[in-house]
This record gives sequence, C-alpha cells and structure tokens, in this order.
Amino acid sequence: MACLKASRAFTGRSKIAKVEGAYHGIYDYAEISQTAKPENWGDAEQPSSVPVSRGTPPATLDDVVVIPYNDTERAIAILDRHVDQLACVLVDLMAHRIGLIKASDEYVNALRKWTQDNDVLLVCDEVITLRATYGGAQTKYPINPDLTAMGKMIGGGFPVGAIAGRADIMEVMNPLTDPVLFPHSGTFSANPVSMTAGLTAMRLYDQSAVNRLNRLTKMARHRITEAIAIAGFPACVTGGGSMFRLHMKPEPPNDYRDTFASADEARKLKVLLDHAFDNGIMLIGTGSGALSTAMTETEIDVLAQVMLDGFRKIKQG
Amino acid sequence: MACLKASRAFTGRSKIAKVEGAYHGIYDYAEISQTAKPENWGDAEQPSSVPVSRGTPPATLDDVVVIPYNDTERAIAILDRHVDQLACVLVDLMAHRIGLIKASDEYVNALRKWTQDNDVLLVCDEVITLRATYGGAQTKYPINPDLTAMGKMIGGGFPVGAIAGRADIMEVMNPLTDPVLFPHSGTFSANPVSMTAGLTAMRLYDQSAVNRLNRLTKMARHRITEAIAIAGFPACVTGGGSMFRLHMKPEPPNDYRDTFASADEARKLKVLLDHAFDNGIMLIGTGSGALSTAMTETEIDVLAQVMLDGFRKIKQG
Repeated sequence: MACLKASRAFTGRSKIAKVEGAYHGIYDYAEISQTAKPENWGDAEQPSSVPVSRGTPPATLDDVVVIPYNDTERAIAILDRHVDQLACVLVDLMAHRIGLIKASDEYVNALRKWTQDNDVLLVCDEVITLRATYGGAQTKYPINPDLTAMGKMIGGGFPVGAIAGRADIMEVMNPLTDPVLFPHSGTFSANPVSMTAGLTAMRLYDQSAVNRLNRLTKMARHRITEAIAIAGFPACVTGGGSMFRLHMKPEPPNDYRDTFASADEARKLKVLLDHAFDNGIMLIGTGSGALSTAMTETEIDVLAQVMLDGFRKIKQG
Repeated sequence: MACLKASRAFTGRSKIAKVEGAYHGIYDYAEISQTAKPENWGDAEQPSSVPVSRGTPPATLDDVVVIPYNDTERAIAILDRHVDQLACVLVDLMAHRIGLIKASDEYVNALRKWTQDNDVLLVCDEVITLRATYGGAQTKYPINPDLTAMGKMIGGGFPVGAIAGRADIMEVMNPLTDPVLFPHSGTFSANPVSMTAGLTAMRLYDQSAVNRLNRLTKMARHRITEAIAIAGFPACVTGGGSMFRLHMKPEPPNDYRDTFASADEARKLKVLLDHAFDNGIMLIGTGSGALSTAMTETEIDVLAQVMLDGFRKIKQG
C-alpha cells in the first residue's frame, strides 16, 4: 500500500499495473485479480480486473491494469494502452501465487525499459523473495527498481514492513516538507523491538547463511523430484532460494493461468497436504514450503520420505 | 481498512461515511478529508471529500461520504442522500484530530438509530479511545457498534491491530467458508509475542488502573487550566480518560472546523511545544498528550509548571 501510494504521490497519476494472480496484501488495488478464475479472468490478450473481496468499489477495477506474467509482448501492449495514467508497475520477481516461478530476464528487462522510457515507476515486492537471495531477488537481474517493498524476515519474528527506493521518491513521505505529498506515520513505525530483532536477524542471515539454506532447499527440491519419479506420479516442483512449491501437474507452469489448479489437481493436493500435516510437515495451502536456518539434511530426509508416501497414497486413490 | 472492507463485504455496498477531520489510518478511503482546509473543505451543509495524498484515485472521493462531527441534523441529512450505497458509518467517539472532544450523546444515538433503521453498519474506531474507559469509549453510550477497530495498547508495546464485532459480520472473514467474502490473513496475524504481551498488558490495565490513570489525567487537565488562568492566556484544554489536548483558543471547539488552528494559533502552539520539548515533555504536534501508568503526581507538577512558563513565554512574544 505504501509503495503504491508513494508512486501515485510522486507521479501524480492514479492507476497502477500489477500481474494477474500475484499476491501483494489486502489493499484493494493490490489484491485485484489475485484470485481470478477461468470463468471471470477474461481474454489472455487483456486480463480482466477481478475483485477479491465482495463490495470492492467498482472504480477500483478501472484503476488497476492487469498484465500477464512472463508474457512480455502482451504485457507491454497492455501497458502501452494506459501509459499516460500509470503511476507504477508492481511485480514480484518469483511470485508465490503464480507458481513460485521466476520472472524471465526478458520480461523483467522489458518492464524496466518500458517504465524508464515512460516515466512510470517500477516497484518490486520483495516481501517474500528478499530471503531468496542475499540482497533480494532483484540482484539476479540487471535492474534497479524504483521502490522495493519488504517485510516478514526483516523483523526477526516481530511484525514489520518497510519500503525503500530512490531518494527523490522517498521524499514524498518526508514529514519536514510542506505539503507532504504522501503523509506516512504510525504508532508502530520504527518499533524498537522489531528494529532490534530485525537488524540482528539480518546480520545473522548473511551471505554464507543464505548460501547454506539455498543449497539445502535445492537438495529438497531435487529429492522431491526424485520421489515424484519413483512414485511415477504426474507432479513437479518449482521454486528458488529457500522455497519450493508442488504442482499436481507434470510440467512447471509459466504464468497464473497455467498455475491455476483444476478441480482434480486441487483434490490431489489436499490429500498430499493432509498426509504431510499428519506426518509433522505443515505446508502452505498452495503446496508451498519454506525452509529455515534451523533445518538440516535430517528434515530433508523426512520431507522426501513423507512426499514419496504421499504421492503413492494419491495414486492408490 | 479491515473494518471498512468487512462492512463492504457484509452489505455488498461500496461507499463508506466518515467524519470530517477524523484520522483512521492511511487507507485512502479512511483518510479522506482528514486534513481538509478552509480553502477546500466546502460548504458546511455538505463537506467536500478532500484527498490527503497526491495521486489519490479521483473515484475514491465519490466513494466516501463526509459528515460533520456533533452536528446531528446535517450529518443525518447527508447520510440520507447516500442511504442505498453506504456500507457503514465510521466514527471515533473522541476523535483526536477533531479537538479530542467527545461525540455528543445525541449525535451518537442518532447515528446508531439511522444505521440500524437503514441496515448500514456502525463502525467505532477505538484504536485511541480504548484506553480512555475500561471497555472503550463506546461503554459511555447506550449503543453497541457493529464493528470496532482496536490497536496500540492491546499489543503491550508490540505492533498489533484487531477488529471485533457481530458474529454474523465477522463471518465474512471465516476462511472455512466458500467463497470467503473478505479474505483476511497475514504473516503476523496472531503473532505470539504481540498476543502474549498484549494479553498481559490488558490484564494489568484493569478497572482500578484505568480509574487511577484517569483521575491523574483529570488533575493534569485541571492544573493546565489553572496555569492558563494564572497566565491570563486565551487557551483551553479538552480531552477525557488519560488524554488531553491544548487549544490556543479560549473556548473548546465543537467540530473539526472549530478545531482547525489559525496561522496565529499554529505559531503559538509551536512555541509552546518547543518549550515543552526543551523541558523534557514531548507532546503530539496537535498539542495533545497521553499519560501512562508509570506516571505520578510528580510528573503532573512538572507538566503544570512547564505549561505555565510556556504560556507566559508566548504572551511575552
């Protein structure tokens, strides 16, 4: 919400563009089309703006431009049609709800070039992906976003959110200017406990800690893929960094519509998740999991075995 | 934001009504007209919807109905004109930004009756006022709001927010229903540290602790009023519970437009706040202060003396 409001305040324009299926919190504009379904998502050439919550003001739909993930040509064509009204393009470089698949270099570079050419801001949501790479997912691309949203791990377990970016954009929140273009303050801003715990956690989660956890998670993805092969079950694993996601389909998806689970896939995933839960492993409802620095190969052994048993259980119906 | 979205989801209607000048966070709809000024606030019969942040989507203005504080007749007349489109009426019963003055019984009762008669929800923002009375400011009125927003002290110093209300309305967030009318979850939902600290703080801040702190604050308001009389300075003190607010005008204001400080009043207040800060007392920029349970009459003595010196300093120019 703060990134979108800062983008509007800086550009003086109201519309934002976001990727179909991506989750960025419950701010109305950010959540549009996060849960779009085949019956309402519209033409792939121009995805519909679909509300998540009942009672969403209808005008919100017009103020959000929805673009497809990893489809550069279509995304740019859509952005071109709204160029004069856009404050920013919001993107998660490895969107969990879009299959936990990486944004392609071509796609990210095209969004960066288009936004730069048109004085529209590029906003990266790294709330999830900051953990994936030391410095965030954006360090894997030859780009610098204008604003970055962060959260989760940067509080060291305590509630926190943060935004960072170009100094001239951040200036819209400077309380010493008059007028302040985007007044932003709060009771819990710079909460000392969250700041202290977060700084400590970030110092401990250094380059070598990230490397170790990512190697462990790569092993986990490999071991689950092996389990899929042994069970002879049509599933696959996506992810990166210290995260993985299971899909009850043989090939990794490429965008949100690919990722969307059929009724049969959703049923199979539920069996797998319940089986995992009953055996001490809690995965996210999407079939995703994240490792933590406390884990070792022992947990991966258990994970792989539980997954293998789970795939066999589904096959046996 | 969650209260407004829950109200929309429950009623299926999009517009919300709020009181001119009231602060309810930075959600676009909630912040409309919080900082309205004489040059843009429009006719008192029908206050204009004034954006706070640059780049606010213009449609947001139409989706927010602004009513005056403590002016029952005008407020009801405005609500009547939007009755079929309103999800809720949002009110703070002792709004800090509206002079920290209590909503009148007549006004609150009329809002409750109007909302009940028209199947519109009444939402109380008790984020600040929950501390003022054991059970919140709403216990001082013969009403039950449909939803209540809370925050600040309920986390015992840790970041937190909560909403509560009628079971049938809260059901819009029930993740076990399909569809969920207002999906609401988050990484820090039910954060165990905030919940534990908050529960402990709430248990310690019991009826007798509230009574003691409120008596102390009543004494503080009385002592500041005495200082004003001794200094012969045209100022007054408002507030209730454990809070007070200074106004650089001789009579307590009755609404936001009354509260709005003239350039001369703003200049005087700045002198007073700087003087207080230099003498160890940090007040909010509006001239407001809140006492805490750690304080005793010693702090009140210092406060009263610093205020007296401050008023004299302003008089001397």
